[in-house]
Amino acid sequence: MLGVDPGLTRCGVGVVDAAAGRRATFVAAGVIRSDPLQSVDLRLLTISREFDTWLDEHIPDVVAVERVFAQHNVGTVMGTAQVAGLAMVAAAKRGIPVALHTPSEVKAAVTGSGRAGKAQVQRMVAQLLRLAEAPKPADAADALALAITHLWRPAGALQGGERSGGLTPAQRAWATAEQAARKR
Amino acid sequence: MLGVDPGLTRCGVGVVDAAAGRRATFVAAGVIRSDPLQSVDLRLLTISREFDTWLDEHIPDVVAVERVFAQHNVGTVMGTAQVAGLAMVAAAKRGIPVALHTPSEVKAAVTGSGRAGKAQVQRMVAQLLRLAEAPKPADAADALALAITHLWRPAGALQGGERSGGLTPAQRAWATAEQAARKR
Repeated sequence: MLGVDPGLTRCGVGVVDAAAGRRATFVAAGVIRSDPLQSVDLRLLTISREFDTWLDEHIPDVVAVERVFAQHNVGTVMGTAQVAGLAMVAAAKRGIPVALHTPSEVKAAVTGSGRAGKAQVQRMVAQLLRLAEAPKPADAADALALAITHLWRPAGALQGGERSGGLTPAQRAWATAEQAARKR
Repeated sequence: MLGVDPGLTRCGVGVVDAAAGRRATFVAAGVIRSDPLQSVDLRLLTISREFDTWLDEHIPDVVAVERVFAQHNVGTVMGTAQVAGLAMVAAAKRGIPVALHTPSEVKAAVTGSGRAGKAQVQRMVAQLLRLAEAPKPADAADALALAITHLWRPAGALQGGERSGGLTPAQRAWATAEQAARKR
């Protein structure tokens, strides 16, 4: 599972593996950077090529990308959306399915609360992946959180079915956050 | 000169050639469509491949893309931004420079007024390219307008210099619109 926390200046990428019993294992994490002094087209090209490298190296089953909303930070949202689009195309051209998850879904999946703070998400990522400390920078940890989120998605939420029994508290919070996001 | 009027459902593409004396000649125009029933990653992949085809066929000197602002239509702006990003990357990976122009710049360049209506822009595109009627659909005409805009950009405006003398009324309007856009 490869997670992408899109951004034009810093884009987090994180890879986790699903061992038996859906336990997540850390594989790799990093940040793709582009030079703010370059023109946007060259920055996007740099990032696009890095996505190709990550996908060719790790050959994930799914690419999980943070869903970008137009209401977010107006100053950076266009670049963020463009980077998310490049991640989607990099996956699609390899036949790899793409999943979009909202920040609330990620927080809910990783911490059990859709309103958790950044630091709490990062602590939980470290704990869940049995790392001594959260991967730095935060973008890398956020990308890992996205990958974990997709790994732990409740089957009922994705299939739109009524399988709400048997969910963990985190999975119930995830489903609630997803329902809220769908109403937007 | 290849112009792109980005959009996820309909993306206009127009190619004009610059004959001697900067007179624009129509080369080709069309619309790239993607299926709204498909997932966004597959739609973006379709569009990305179409950009590749257009650029490989026409080998433009410059790709002019409409600048997308976050304030625009919230429902479609993310897809529009992503398609604009793909056009930029398609150009950048071929070493083709990218120019971004605002809708006001396009209107000013083509009609002489940054506040011209859609229909007026389309009529002027037909007239400037000596076509019997405006290319349909409107997205194709808008893409041609973008290409014309880049062709006619006033040298002073691009270089940030003080060459304001000798501009046509349309070029002065263009420069004014560009200055306004830079202040946003």
